[in-house]
Amino acid sequence: MVVAKLNCAVLLAASLPAAVWAQTYQRLGTCPTLGCVLPPDQSDFLPGQLFDLRVEVHAPVNGSEAVRNGTTPAGRAGKPDEKFRVTIAKEGQGAEQIAKVFTIEEPKLEKWTFKWYEDLFAEDRKTPSLVNVASKAYRKLSLNEPGKYTVTLEYNGGQKTTAEWFVRPIVKERRAKNVIFFIGDGMTTNMITAARLLGHKSTNGKYQTRMQMDEFPVLGHQMTHSIDSYITDSANSASALYSGHKSTVNAMGVYADSSPDPFDDPKVETIVEIFRRITKGAWGAVSTAFLADATPIALTGHTRRRAEYGALIDQALNGLTNYSWTNHGGPDVYFGAGAEQFFAGKGSYRGKDYYKAFADRNYTVSLNKTSLEKIDTSQKALGVFSQSNLPVWLDRNIYPENLKNFKNDPKGGQGPALDLPGLKEMTLKAVEVLHRRGGDKGFFLMSEAASVDKQMHYLDYDRALGDLLELDDTVRATIKQLEKLDILHETLVIVSADHGHGFDVWGSADTEYISKNHDDRKKRNAIGIYEKSGLSQYTVKPKQLKYGTGVNFPANWEPRYAIAGGVGATPDHREDYKVHKSGPREPAVKGTDGYVVNPKDAVGGFVINGTLATTENQGVHSLTDVPVYAMGPCQETFGGTYNNVDIFYKMAACLGLARPPSACET
Amino acid sequence: MVVAKLNCAVLLAASLPAAVWAQTYQRLGTCPTLGCVLPPDQSDFLPGQLFDLRVEVHAPVNGSEAVRNGTTPAGRAGKPDEKFRVTIAKEGQGAEQIAKVFTIEEPKLEKWTFKWYEDLFAEDRKTPSLVNVASKAYRKLSLNEPGKYTVTLEYNGGQKTTAEWFVRPIVKERRAKNVIFFIGDGMTTNMITAARLLGHKSTNGKYQTRMQMDEFPVLGHQMTHSIDSYITDSANSASALYSGHKSTVNAMGVYADSSPDPFDDPKVETIVEIFRRITKGAWGAVSTAFLADATPIALTGHTRRRAEYGALIDQALNGLTNYSWTNHGGPDVYFGAGAEQFFAGKGSYRGKDYYKAFADRNYTVSLNKTSLEKIDTSQKALGVFSQSNLPVWLDRNIYPENLKNFKNDPKGGQGPALDLPGLKEMTLKAVEVLHRRGGDKGFFLMSEAASVDKQMHYLDYDRALGDLLELDDTVRATIKQLEKLDILHETLVIVSADHGHGFDVWGSADTEYISKNHDDRKKRNAIGIYEKSGLSQYTVKPKQLKYGTGVNFPANWEPRYAIAGGVGATPDHREDYKVHKSGPREPAVKGTDGYVVNPKDAVGGFVINGTLATTENQGVHSLTDVPVYAMGPCQETFGGTYNNVDIFYKMAACLGLARPPSACET
Repeated sequence: MVVAKLNCAVLLAASLPAAVWAQTYQRLGTCPTLGCVLPPDQSDFLPGQLFDLRVEVHAPVNGSEAVRNGTTPAGRAGKPDEKFRVTIAKEGQGAEQIAKVFTIEEPKLEKWTFKWYEDLFAEDRKTPSLVNVASKAYRKLSLNEPGKYTVTLEYNGGQKTTAEWFVRPIVKERRAKNVIFFIGDGMTTNMITAARLLGHKSTNGKYQTRMQMDEFPVLGHQMTHSIDSYITDSANSASALYSGHKSTVNAMGVYADSSPDPFDDPKVETIVEIFRRITKGAWGAVSTAFLADATPIALTGHTRRRAEYGALIDQALNGLTNYSWTNHGGPDVYFGAGAEQFFAGKGSYRGKDYYKAFADRNYTVSLNKTSLEKIDTSQKALGVFSQSNLPVWLDRNIYPENLKNFKNDPKGGQGPALDLPGLKEMTLKAVEVLHRRGGDKGFFLMSEAASVDKQMHYLDYDRALGDLLELDDTVRATIKQLEKLDILHETLVIVSADHGHGFDVWGSADTEYISKNHDDRKKRNAIGIYEKSGLSQYTVKPKQLKYGTGVNFPANWEPRYAIAGGVGATPDHREDYKVHKSGPREPAVKGTDGYVVNPKDAVGGFVINGTLATTENQGVHSLTDVPVYAMGPCQETFGGTYNNVDIFYKMAACLGLARPPSACET
Repeated sequence: MVVAKLNCAVLLAASLPAAVWAQTYQRLGTCPTLGCVLPPDQSDFLPGQLFDLRVEVHAPVNGSEAVRNGTTPAGRAGKPDEKFRVTIAKEGQGAEQIAKVFTIEEPKLEKWTFKWYEDLFAEDRKTPSLVNVASKAYRKLSLNEPGKYTVTLEYNGGQKTTAEWFVRPIVKERRAKNVIFFIGDGMTTNMITAARLLGHKSTNGKYQTRMQMDEFPVLGHQMTHSIDSYITDSANSASALYSGHKSTVNAMGVYADSSPDPFDDPKVETIVEIFRRITKGAWGAVSTAFLADATPIALTGHTRRRAEYGALIDQALNGLTNYSWTNHGGPDVYFGAGAEQFFAGKGSYRGKDYYKAFADRNYTVSLNKTSLEKIDTSQKALGVFSQSNLPVWLDRNIYPENLKNFKNDPKGGQGPALDLPGLKEMTLKAVEVLHRRGGDKGFFLMSEAASVDKQMHYLDYDRALGDLLELDDTVRATIKQLEKLDILHETLVIVSADHGHGFDVWGSADTEYISKNHDDRKKRNAIGIYEKSGLSQYTVKPKQLKYGTGVNFPANWEPRYAIAGGVGATPDHREDYKVHKSGPREPAVKGTDGYVVNPKDAVGGFVINGTLATTENQGVHSLTDVPVYAMGPCQETFGGTYNNVDIFYKMAACLGLARPPSACET
């Protein structure tokens, strides 16, 4: 057994298969027994990757598990066994106590209580189940030797919970100098197909131009499910992509424990933390969302509560301050929206001015496109262009009058932000800065088209597909820029998503027929299927209409025959299949009994009743695997079907990060 | 210019870009101008592939185009120009008349009239537009030299319609001896993801077993749209996969013309016709559908009307009899259902007994599984196991009592077919026969899981996913068999689909909560999303329940927490998310004003109103690109994103068919 001489430590048992537990309502995800090991059974690790180990012993006070608990020798009557024991064993070797193996002090015992509901009936009755917990957290560990390990938690006089861990192989060669990881949030193959139909001309079944994604040589599929639920949110799926560890809905950079503190959960090191620790290269994030949103913030965030926006922006600049941890050094580039976490106020961490905090750390700070274009690219760069999310491509390019209705001044005022960059402008500038600052050490960039997801949620399919086409246009421009900089051959470019929405197109809708008929059932006859779906009218330029958005975007956003598409999971809403010209859509509004059709939306369309709980005002994420497009060094490793965590291991291996630190690089 | 000395001929212009035409209601697909060339602009060909050329000149009598027509010097007043001229030119060479280039007689002029509706309003008013047509068909041509050709139709005193054609490169090397092409009809990535969730256990986010498709090394996406509508049906998408030519909804092996005869449309040669012509190898088709259904029958069918079931079965046995054409020799293996086209009666061609017709051509004829298992594998084999489609996997394996309710005796009686093979048994036997009969010449097999599509149409998601899992199980068993026969290394295995349905899963449904609440809005609160989707309960074996269907299939089809999923395009229906135990689902029934909720279906669920025309009783196909999994020789050519027709060219190249006949192999 090899123990690394870092302030962290390396490893290395009894083994029982984990019990099968498949409840929808869970006491604690990943913990079907009364003993919990986090990271749990089946976790993978990069060699040398930092992580915390949390163990918990649960003593249910009431509910369906309380009786079972009474039968064990220890932990009776809701009292958790405090004398539990935790060991680790490398395959073929003996088990030893954690603190000894990692040469750390035995952590002190923690105790708390939490509540959960066993099902919807219990929730309706308001009868939660209470659980008392005894726990320890072993912090900042790492395993340097590839192979299989077994962690065993012994409690209640002989009960065991075991976790098998796998440390991935060491890969010594660094094949990519740079990685650019594009994420179309919520983007599926179905949406890419629809966007192609809108943006690209086809003649007799053959597209005359194609999506940039279509030109990628390698295609894969990734599975997006959470660790403890099959539908993911964007926090824990982003975290899986960046850390190689799946987590729980709303969590990132940690395994969710049951403690009250959302910042003490056991952490895992992320790609930018490792990249920075090992290579000292530059890294950045670009997003059309607010920067504290899940996809950009999961690069640096460690919490099980994604809504801690202010604190997460602080973590992005300053790293973790409550525990000793690896330091990502702050982003070299940070472009997006969400000004309310930056200007001093109730949205920012402790009310502080984060524009100033970044400037104090020598960041250039841009609050509009004009300023962004002029920045000194040798400096670290912060760009925050609006409050909330950036207005979408459709409003910025086709219906710019709508921009005036936003109250999103990045300085915190009540006026609109009008001088706005898009994803393309932000990404190209980011590459410029990162290439210059990374130098020989290379760079890592994540660039997110966030509103593919956000507009899908509100059933605003045109806005979602507009942003998807903007993403594709950005990928195209970025590849050209990499060529120009002569770094395309040494840059791995990936385009993927974090999860899907169940969107598809099933025909065309004669919008004229819908509006001229007055009976909802009759209106439905406007939906043309199969041969009556016809050809895309979005690519046919109408007389006296020219957007100037160029090829690869629709020539007409308001054709008589629109695509008839949507999702199966919705709130009550109405559909007329027309573009929502006057601004982003709001399909449902609060009624006396949950959400109902928004009387102001899609007037003239027909009503579609919801299939989700009436507490929902929007659509939801879906199960589907999402596509992965790869080009550049290591592209061949991205073919086929794999888990989202594998993308982390593939990127890390390609960047030469799949190895323990050579000396004490932490 | 090289002219091949076949009874067919080879080639070799004026060039104007085709007008952009994007109506949903079309006079004739692929013909936006008044002159039509079929194959139309942008068509691809395999070198040496046989095809017919049809040209039409249209003279609209009334409707929106009649006025425009009046302005041309010829073709006035609804009279088509009969003196049109057709030429072809290879790039860089001069244009010559078709008959001269292909050394055939000038075909005689044909004339007819057809009607069409210009939009839904015209349809409601019952005011069709009338078109008079003059036409010629140049039959059994082929182009042997790769490159670009321009076909020009001149009519109405100077108007021109041009078509650019592309003959793909010659590939001399044959890399695969055999091809097995699995088609999951209507199967999408979303469905594969859902099937995996049902059939495979996951522990803490890591699947402990995976789909066989997940193990394929190469993944691609194919675009499925028709030539003249963006939503395809199974006939023309199958035809695109088999011939490299897209077509029109309901058509196969032809470009749809406007003539009244559904069997005179211009034909294109299919993969089995070419394979047979060039290699003399064996070929077969297996399907869980009726054998005259689109996917199996498009291998040999040439018609624009897929519902000509009887005639199409005759074509499958005897080839074309109305025109001189290549001869596929009849399938070596033909396993599936649809007995009503085989026993003498009103479903069979001219009322003849096709069991006898096949037997007369030395086929073994199996009408049940027992008989299938015993066939002499040196003989050609016909197996027809039920009327209509084969009962699905779920009924055959989980609820076999349901089989007794079918009236599907393959001999034509009123009783049920009970001794039934599944896709796996049929496919394994097919490989056995084809390997033996193909010998050194190899074989081509298409094996279709038809009811993935058929059950999706009826919103019977459990039955659809059951058949998807059966397909995956069949692929797994087939690969093992190929290994055992020591031909895996020389066999290209492809798994793909012909189109999708817009299915996805968005959460779990507490079926108990749905049934115990009595208000539709309250019932909807049973849908658990994100963290409340929980884990799959289909993989958890309930006490005292064991199906014996083995690993890779659900351990429980009736969990309390079922998947909540579906499609966005439906008729009115009700949903309780439970498996339909008593037999296949019928979501909607005919009411006084179109289709309405079936009062006997999903009783206890909540109502979801339809989003399709009220004339529809089922769901419909969708736009999405579908996945392509490839393994074996040429697998690397199947990565990335491409058109469905490209699959034909990739398979043909791999089989050494991308070349003109060496002598006169027709």
